[in-house]
Amino acid sequence: MRLVVCLLSLLTVLGRAECGNVLVWPTDGSHWINLKIVMETLIDRGHGVTVLLPDASMFMDAKESDRFSYLPFNVSMSSKDIHDFLEEILHFSIYELDELNLLQLMDKLRHEKFDVVLTDPIYPCSDIVAEQLNIPLVYTFRFSIANSAERMCGQIPAPPSFVPGAMSKLTDKMSFTERIINMLFYLSQDVMANFVWRKFNNYYTDYLGQPTSYCEMMGKADIWLIRTYWDFEFPRPFLPNFKYVGGLHCTPAKPLPKDMEEFVQSSGDDGIVVFTLGSMVKNMTKERSNTIASALAQIPQKVLWRYSGEKPDTLGANTRLFNWIPQNDLLGHPKTRAFITHGGTNGIYEAIYHGVPMVGIPLFGDQPDNLAHMKAKGAAVVMDSIKNMQTQELVDGLDAVINDPSYKENAMRLSRIHHDRPIKPLDEAVFWIEFVMRNKGAKHLRVEAHNLTWYQYHCLDVFAFLITIVTVVLYIFYKMCKYVIMRCCFRSKHKSKKE
Amino acid sequence: MRLVVCLLSLLTVLGRAECGNVLVWPTDGSHWINLKIVMETLIDRGHGVTVLLPDASMFMDAKESDRFSYLPFNVSMSSKDIHDFLEEILHFSIYELDELNLLQLMDKLRHEKFDVVLTDPIYPCSDIVAEQLNIPLVYTFRFSIANSAERMCGQIPAPPSFVPGAMSKLTDKMSFTERIINMLFYLSQDVMANFVWRKFNNYYTDYLGQPTSYCEMMGKADIWLIRTYWDFEFPRPFLPNFKYVGGLHCTPAKPLPKDMEEFVQSSGDDGIVVFTLGSMVKNMTKERSNTIASALAQIPQKVLWRYSGEKPDTLGANTRLFNWIPQNDLLGHPKTRAFITHGGTNGIYEAIYHGVPMVGIPLFGDQPDNLAHMKAKGAAVVMDSIKNMQTQELVDGLDAVINDPSYKENAMRLSRIHHDRPIKPLDEAVFWIEFVMRNKGAKHLRVEAHNLTWYQYHCLDVFAFLITIVTVVLYIFYKMCKYVIMRCCFRSKHKSKKE
Repeated sequence: MRLVVCLLSLLTVLGRAECGNVLVWPTDGSHWINLKIVMETLIDRGHGVTVLLPDASMFMDAKESDRFSYLPFNVSMSSKDIHDFLEEILHFSIYELDELNLLQLMDKLRHEKFDVVLTDPIYPCSDIVAEQLNIPLVYTFRFSIANSAERMCGQIPAPPSFVPGAMSKLTDKMSFTERIINMLFYLSQDVMANFVWRKFNNYYTDYLGQPTSYCEMMGKADIWLIRTYWDFEFPRPFLPNFKYVGGLHCTPAKPLPKDMEEFVQSSGDDGIVVFTLGSMVKNMTKERSNTIASALAQIPQKVLWRYSGEKPDTLGANTRLFNWIPQNDLLGHPKTRAFITHGGTNGIYEAIYHGVPMVGIPLFGDQPDNLAHMKAKGAAVVMDSIKNMQTQELVDGLDAVINDPSYKENAMRLSRIHHDRPIKPLDEAVFWIEFVMRNKGAKHLRVEAHNLTWYQYHCLDVFAFLITIVTVVLYIFYKMCKYVIMRCCFRSKHKSKKE
Repeated sequence: MRLVVCLLSLLTVLGRAECGNVLVWPTDGSHWINLKIVMETLIDRGHGVTVLLPDASMFMDAKESDRFSYLPFNVSMSSKDIHDFLEEILHFSIYELDELNLLQLMDKLRHEKFDVVLTDPIYPCSDIVAEQLNIPLVYTFRFSIANSAERMCGQIPAPPSFVPGAMSKLTDKMSFTERIINMLFYLSQDVMANFVWRKFNNYYTDYLGQPTSYCEMMGKADIWLIRTYWDFEFPRPFLPNFKYVGGLHCTPAKPLPKDMEEFVQSSGDDGIVVFTLGSMVKNMTKERSNTIASALAQIPQKVLWRYSGEKPDTLGANTRLFNWIPQNDLLGHPKTRAFITHGGTNGIYEAIYHGVPMVGIPLFGDQPDNLAHMKAKGAAVVMDSIKNMQTQELVDGLDAVINDPSYKENAMRLSRIHHDRPIKPLDEAVFWIEFVMRNKGAKHLRVEAHNLTWYQYHCLDVFAFLITIVTVVLYIFYKMCKYVIMRCCFRSKHKSKKE
């Protein structure tokens, strides 16, 4: 069957599939949602996909799809623990796996003859597996704080003067003060990252039996699929093995359920506002939900609010609560005027895809930074925080993005940038995964910077040498001048004495 | 008719053409050959293409194609002059055009309502035209010496520690000495470039009536189509508006003329060697041609030598001279074992396309550097120079690339890299030209670095500030320590005195 699919896929436009065997390293949360779409497409194109499945996971579930193979392994943690301690997840990847007899798992993996390891590097150790199986490694990555991993391990250049560190909430247009802040952010996060990576270094060194740095191992990745694009990112230098495939999960809108479509149509020319704070927020304080609801009650649009908490007292007739909404289908609906969002990357990308301006209520993590990008690009108004947000603030924000045409225009401009690229992001991601399978890696895209020390990279040794040479030359010149002058003076004195 | 073609082109796979009007700034030599293919494709896709045609040109000829519109203008120079003094070509673009009443030409151009200016920036002033017509500017570029223009005007990052300057003959793997040489090469060429650009700056300032730098104007280009790719380049950092479209002129081989095919087939299993030193070399000294011919006579392969000089005395029975050869069709022939080349970029790309190993005899310009790339990638043996080359050297070189399988393997690896990309180079070039027409530019790909001074870019102001702060803090700390110690000592002394 797989062979038939593979042969058929050879006839498609992308059409260069050769059946490969993909090993997917576990990841979780929204990272997993994104990865799954790539995996589905790989299977559609005839590849075998095997997922290493930890038995404690928030999103991954062996029952989810019978299309992937799962290779389950036990970890001495519950889903609850993971949920509570993201930090611990990293720990489990490293130390729990070891206790489980990693050797046995590695033997299994070797036996399966994989062609590539696909992973989100926020979960470590995939690089060891790729190294031990001697197969290429492809990352799918959103970012590390201040892009420390991309810069220090991936060797991507990032002048702090116009490349704001991820999570800094800065843009590419920085004042002098902001450039100082960005520089200090880079420096402090690099120190922090190196500190965190120390324990990984120890484990890697233990396991591989030779001094190994985590960062150096990350740097061996063949391709970094970055889950953004220039619709979201500020333009910045990058490297040939960094591929920007942001928005690969976006799809055209499908028709809405009948009752929802009726509610949407009832909005008339005013249209609708789509409101969700993501899957993490199910509840908030009565006071907060009332503040929000009373703001929503003041706008002429109909509002679809994904909220499973207690019904707010101030809920207007124009607002309807839903336990779940088909977010992408709503954002793609012609009646949609605005999107109130917490600023998760996936949601922002759906809004960009459909060209919908946003009102941001950032909660945590990368959300304030994501929304700072949308604000800088003129496609969003951003609230300070959900904690302090006043009713009027939200009303004003909605009024702006709905009635000031610049927001819609900018959202449409981002949408055009998103759609108008030579190859669709999902096709590009799949292309590079297949490329490394076909060509056993992509070393021709990997810069030589990986083999330089930091002082070699920055030419400090060259500068030191050149400065030394110049100093010596100047010194000799000075001495010679002095000698010549002395001789002249001495002679003239000598002469004058004689006279 | 144009409308029909345009509508038809909407049905093709790339399929997003909107009929535009392209103004092509004149260029010459091999640059023009390359540009012509892009223009042909633009016309195939329904766009109007108008070429500014100087009446003194090496390759451009209004009779060449009736598909492009030509807007001729007189220059007070002959083709001979241009041929002799490449430097002077630059001069003519600037000062001769001015004498011709540039205003009149500009009026004509304004009237035509162009959507984009397409140009090779080795000929200056296209940026002024784009600015004055207020339309986007697309460069198609091979390189500037030491990449001064790309670095200083295009803001592409290029750490001298692993990015060898163009024309340096260095690779990305440099020893300490080579890194010093590369650094000095960068520095000296930057000084040189700034010196050369000074006269352009004056003209630009004169013409635009405000202080304008040539480099700053170049930096306004929306897209830089670079005519290489990672099959030829060493991997290096680049920017979102730099698109590597190397080899866009390459096409599959067509059948050979009958008599040539017979000669090729007569080579049997030994195969053939294709030999050309490009269109510039028509003749060489008798002594040189004899040295070469006697080397060729010693190999078992049949040789097709493009040479219109006098027949060498030592010419072997296996070698046939031709005034012209279908180079690409020969390189794509299954019997071809090696390519003896002067190392022009176009020829090298045809060899890469067909996976043919090379013996390089560099003549001038970028040829030694091009061949250094191919040597570093293991696909070529390079002679020192045509002047000093000995018969045995050439025999050994041919023997190596034909009989040591590593050369063929590396040539095939480069060929795979060349072919195995998500979008064909010609399609990519056309895509971005159409993109800027559709979207009135591509400012979202242009880094903010263009708006920073050099000391801001390198954060020197930030460092100066931080160092000042640290110094002041340390100084205050020192003073405080001193004060405290003094107080303590003073007290204890005071005490002891009292006692």
